[in-house]
Amino acid sequence: MKVIVVGAGFGGINAAKTLAKNKSIDVVVVDKRNYHLFQPFLYQVATAGLSPADISVPIRAFFRGQKNVEVIMGEVAGIDQKSRLLKLSNNKNLKYDKVVIAAGAKNHIFNQDWAKHVYGLKSIQDALSLRKNILMSFELAEVEQDPVKRKAYTTFAIIGGGPTGVELAGAIAELARFTLSEDFRNIDPSDTRVILIEAGSRVLSTFDQGLSKKAKRALEKLGVSVWLESKVSNICKGKVELGSDVINANTIIWAAGVVSTDLAKDLEADVGVNLKRGNRLLVNEFLQVKGCEDIYAIGDISYFEKEELPGIAPVAIQQGKYVGKAIKRLFKEKEIRPFSYVDKGHMATIGRSKAIAQIGKLRFGGTIAWYLWVFIHIYFLIGFRNRVSVFLQWLWSYLTYKRGARIIN
Amino acid sequence: MKVIVVGAGFGGINAAKTLAKNKSIDVVVVDKRNYHLFQPFLYQVATAGLSPADISVPIRAFFRGQKNVEVIMGEVAGIDQKSRLLKLSNNKNLKYDKVVIAAGAKNHIFNQDWAKHVYGLKSIQDALSLRKNILMSFELAEVEQDPVKRKAYTTFAIIGGGPTGVELAGAIAELARFTLSEDFRNIDPSDTRVILIEAGSRVLSTFDQGLSKKAKRALEKLGVSVWLESKVSNICKGKVELGSDVINANTIIWAAGVVSTDLAKDLEADVGVNLKRGNRLLVNEFLQVKGCEDIYAIGDISYFEKEELPGIAPVAIQQGKYVGKAIKRLFKEKEIRPFSYVDKGHMATIGRSKAIAQIGKLRFGGTIAWYLWVFIHIYFLIGFRNRVSVFLQWLWSYLTYKRGARIIN
Repeated sequence: MKVIVVGAGFGGINAAKTLAKNKSIDVVVVDKRNYHLFQPFLYQVATAGLSPADISVPIRAFFRGQKNVEVIMGEVAGIDQKSRLLKLSNNKNLKYDKVVIAAGAKNHIFNQDWAKHVYGLKSIQDALSLRKNILMSFELAEVEQDPVKRKAYTTFAIIGGGPTGVELAGAIAELARFTLSEDFRNIDPSDTRVILIEAGSRVLSTFDQGLSKKAKRALEKLGVSVWLESKVSNICKGKVELGSDVINANTIIWAAGVVSTDLAKDLEADVGVNLKRGNRLLVNEFLQVKGCEDIYAIGDISYFEKEELPGIAPVAIQQGKYVGKAIKRLFKEKEIRPFSYVDKGHMATIGRSKAIAQIGKLRFGGTIAWYLWVFIHIYFLIGFRNRVSVFLQWLWSYLTYKRGARIIN
Repeated sequence: MKVIVVGAGFGGINAAKTLAKNKSIDVVVVDKRNYHLFQPFLYQVATAGLSPADISVPIRAFFRGQKNVEVIMGEVAGIDQKSRLLKLSNNKNLKYDKVVIAAGAKNHIFNQDWAKHVYGLKSIQDALSLRKNILMSFELAEVEQDPVKRKAYTTFAIIGGGPTGVELAGAIAELARFTLSEDFRNIDPSDTRVILIEAGSRVLSTFDQGLSKKAKRALEKLGVSVWLESKVSNICKGKVELGSDVINANTIIWAAGVVSTDLAKDLEADVGVNLKRGNRLLVNEFLQVKGCEDIYAIGDISYFEKEELPGIAPVAIQQGKYVGKAIKRLFKEKEIRPFSYVDKGHMATIGRSKAIAQIGKLRFGGTIAWYLWVFIHIYFLIGFRNRVSVFLQWLWSYLTYKRGARIIN
């Protein structure tokens, strides 16, 4: 049996690893990149705390010794369901018995005119462009004579009060307030304005009300302005408009939602599947795309019919492992039970020593939550070397307030 | 007194640090980048061993607490010697009493038609493009059906048998032979051809004959073909011609010489100074540009009249410190002695456990030389954090043969 896994994110890599244990199954992993990315730490790359290689592992490295796994770096163009062919953009076709779609999500900026004025944060490229822009802003402010322009250079507007927006806001505020505080002669980086804009009534709305409040207070203590119930009405170059309010900001970051990668749309055209909110592929209780039992979809690209699941790593990981096991059982003609998600709790971090956690009935915030957050994230950061490297860099940053990747290139 | 230092390489950073100790001197450091680069390790970035941030330190970080030092990120457009003005490319002028030119060198590819087909190795950008191309070559070979094209993808031609060429050849051979050996299914990376092309009669010609031979043997043991007395007659896309010999190589690397950065040419036009071989600024025994006693030049951009000095870090470091001290003594109206270079020996490395060293009358090679090389280079890699990080990554690579920065982006 030949199984193709499309995408080597949290979902895909776990599906492939689970499948690969059965040596009679040929596994092919297709990804347009050569690395698995630990997305929860992208904001650390964007704010010069870590390097891209610290949060990436070559996909081939996962399957080095496993001869039943082939890795192909390439882009998927579509699926021919009848002939069970996966079409690559280089015009090559791969035959499959089962295919697992784990191609993830991309930024969803609903107004295309706005898109060219904002920075997203879904890829290494995004993170590096953002890092360059953040660091350059302070350099440009340092040599700017016009006080109005200077202020715009050191203003950062972040749209979206979810985990990414909150983490970025905290990290940029700390960069300005601590890391860069003594580095300039003409500007005071601690005058930097970081404005977090949220359309809803609170930040981190998937958490309990009380934790949202804690997070907001922690952000404000770092000097972040949190604007709630603020709807963006227009974005143009260096400017965010919220009704009659206008923010002049050299850096505008979009952290307000994602949509499935284009493969979902391609499948709608090729196979005629149903797309749900955010262009996600509707999957049944066995994570099969509705109407095509040979095609599974997991993670951010999928929409679980039974209950709506959040677009977070634990969901993708559990779904990846489930699909791997389900296909192996199918191969052995054993009975398969439906997928169910086990919520082990969730966490978010705000700056260098605050976090909030919601685990079962437990709700807590502050430094203890932060230590727990660090421990869990380092533990899950796949690959031994990255774990040590990231831990040391964090320790170093924590003790010195310095950042290791403060280079503009 | 106001002293401007142009360039924050080994020469400039040492000049500025030495000058800054006298709080009555205002020091301005101008560089087009925001970081000091540890150039000797660029080949490690190009071959996925280290990340850019591991070999870079923000210039501002050197002078954090020193209020008499200002750092300006910007490009120099020229010098108005009469009014003692340094002109920046953003049309701003900086007044100086003394200026230290430490703007370094760039790749010298004497045929412009060749330049677009080769990779250089003088900047982080160079190293990242080269890394991307090296890693992509194996990916493309893996999916290529045509055996002739496949061979070209895994052929690496390196032009120039100096330290950079030798280090790159060794590192690429090791990458293919050890790191990637188990990662592919359709190709065997250890069939990779690495060809080191040298016009002269031996590699590392600044070393003794015996050490050159040792280095050549060490390279050959790693599987590198060393072609001596081989002159490149033409380079076109994917092809190097040496008379009637032709190498089809997807990756062609230029490591055959450098020339001063454009500032030297600008000074020739603005000030009318003399340029020597490689467009270098002729300097007198006090490292002053001949005919302009307010302008000093050090490192790769300078040509020392008394004796020809190699373009290596120790020369730039000694010259930087000397100029710093000389200007401080001038400021205090003390007598100044001419510069003289103290040769503390030199070393080159070939792969993961071989090096050669020539120190005073001592000549040795092998593993001991390699340990010495590691020790000295880690020691000189400025900035505590980078030292620890680089050391750990090396240890990790050494023990596991893995590489930390194997991402294509």
